[in-house]
Amino acid sequence: MPEFRKDPVVERWVIIAAERAKRPQGKPERVHMADTGICPFCPGNESMTPPAVLVLAEDNALPGEANWSVRVVPNKYPALVDQENLAPRTDGLFNSMHGAGAHEVVIESAQHEIGMAALSERNIELVLHAYRGRLRQWRGDQRWGYALIYKNQGAEAGATLAHSHSQIAALPMVPKEPLEEIEAAKKYFASAGRCVYCVIAQRESEIDRRVVLENERFMVFCPFASRVAGETWILPKRHSSCFESGSKEDFLALARSLRETLVRLSRCFNEPSLNYFLHNNPLSEPENDYCHWHLEILPKLHHVAGFEWGSGCYMNPLAPEDAARQLREASL
Amino acid sequence: MPEFRKDPVVERWVIIAAERAKRPQGKPERVHMADTGICPFCPGNESMTPPAVLVLAEDNALPGEANWSVRVVPNKYPALVDQENLAPRTDGLFNSMHGAGAHEVVIESAQHEIGMAALSERNIELVLHAYRGRLRQWRGDQRWGYALIYKNQGAEAGATLAHSHSQIAALPMVPKEPLEEIEAAKKYFASAGRCVYCVIAQRESEIDRRVVLENERFMVFCPFASRVAGETWILPKRHSSCFESGSKEDFLALARSLRETLVRLSRCFNEPSLNYFLHNNPLSEPENDYCHWHLEILPKLHHVAGFEWGSGCYMNPLAPEDAARQLREASL
Repeated sequence: MPEFRKDPVVERWVIIAAERAKRPQGKPERVHMADTGICPFCPGNESMTPPAVLVLAEDNALPGEANWSVRVVPNKYPALVDQENLAPRTDGLFNSMHGAGAHEVVIESAQHEIGMAALSERNIELVLHAYRGRLRQWRGDQRWGYALIYKNQGAEAGATLAHSHSQIAALPMVPKEPLEEIEAAKKYFASAGRCVYCVIAQRESEIDRRVVLENERFMVFCPFASRVAGETWILPKRHSSCFESGSKEDFLALARSLRETLVRLSRCFNEPSLNYFLHNNPLSEPENDYCHWHLEILPKLHHVAGFEWGSGCYMNPLAPEDAARQLREASL
Repeated sequence: MPEFRKDPVVERWVIIAAERAKRPQGKPERVHMADTGICPFCPGNESMTPPAVLVLAEDNALPGEANWSVRVVPNKYPALVDQENLAPRTDGLFNSMHGAGAHEVVIESAQHEIGMAALSERNIELVLHAYRGRLRQWRGDQRWGYALIYKNQGAEAGATLAHSHSQIAALPMVPKEPLEEIEAAKKYFASAGRCVYCVIAQRESEIDRRVVLENERFMVFCPFASRVAGETWILPKRHSSCFESGSKEDFLALARSLRETLVRLSRCFNEPSLNYFLHNNPLSEPENDYCHWHLEILPKLHHVAGFEWGSGCYMNPLAPEDAARQLREASL
């Protein structure tokens, strides 16, 4: 049974998840090709994963065993388990509770593609629809405080399987990173009367030195205080606190923007390993004026090392203005 | 000129340091052996580094060009530069200032050793004396708020040179991680009337399930909420806020404890890449009852990935109780 533990000094949660040590280890290519020769995410191998909780197919065809484009399945090596009881324990210093939550895998394509940049616009749109579907599901579930959608692509980014996939973790609390963002955004709104992310989108468009691409609905840019080389954010230009409340047109435009961004990153930085994650409104919060969802993409071009661990401050060897220029100039 | 930038939403600093992109890249072994064949940290190659700011030799011999055990030199590719003027800039949203500070390298041995575990106890003692010397230097310098000592050992931990070394960064502010710790420790002291780290050391000794080794002066243990597999802390048992105020006997005992810890980690986890860093009292703070210095060692046995980046919460596949048992049982 996984366990949440809270650091006795600072506001930091960890999940002690010994089950995850049983995952196949090694480079994604090795796990798939050499070690077993079988990809559990490829069509025909559906029995190698737990049964799907959501299946989507192209062109509104009825999805079936041999006819799907995106499958969402429970993680076979979950860091969190579906259970009501948190059973908090404390001795006054050390606090822990059951690792209650949900942990799912979004298998993004029926093709054994390693990089999401290789997927079609329509395929990526279906991935986004899968995110929306699961977020709506979790928003209706009173047990969870936050649902984090994230991607590990490539061995350096922590992937243990090569086939293009992302993950969803539903947590009982709002974790530290989104919590700090939301509290800061709330504070900004209280003092300035505007959403700080709306202000950022507008200022980035005006300054126009960190913009990777901009269209009617989305702003894609390398943020002013980028932590890592090539860090790129996708932000809706019109204020929106809940990702899953977007319209059909929003998701189509997002699929287009995300695909172009991934292709530019891939061309520019030689198919880098990367992480991305969605910062969205907490599950228990209604739509509001201060929280503004966005997708943060972090290529793995250099190591985060002792300085970052020890200080919480980041050393970035590539100015975001230069990263954005390189990304804009990448040939498609 | 490197630049500090503050995230416009959360309390997060980054250093945009394009100079660092000029560092030799690749695996440490490759940089040293195949690419150039010359290690800039080996005796005889002193001219390849900037002139030393501190040199220590064995047995109180006078250190010279060909007779040193530990050298501290300015980093050739500094993320921070020695300058008084912070020149803060703001447009109300985006805040930045010059990357003022110091960035030094501690060359830990005259032998071309890759792992610090291979160094003698006396050699490690001299490394600790070098830390003490530089911390005393920086504590007298009114410009800086915090000095972070950290180590990147092995390519996965971000090292770009193989020869055993650590680094010191003097920063104009107290950065986020130590600041959060200190504020929490202050709060704990205000309510409980005791140092939280003193309480932790005592409780860990009583519980005795996460202790790696314990002697008269130091407690070495895998912390309750370990972020990564094999995370190990070294904490003085008697309250001490400033690392550099330790006695000769303290440093000797610390050298012994650190060496044994590194050897155990090396045996147990097959010479892992690792980071360590020293959390010490801020430079401008006098000795006090709530801040308690400690060394945090983080082996790199798995990747920190999208979940950790997006949530600030950690998934750890090895319970600290199991890690501590394995470390205790490792044969020396």
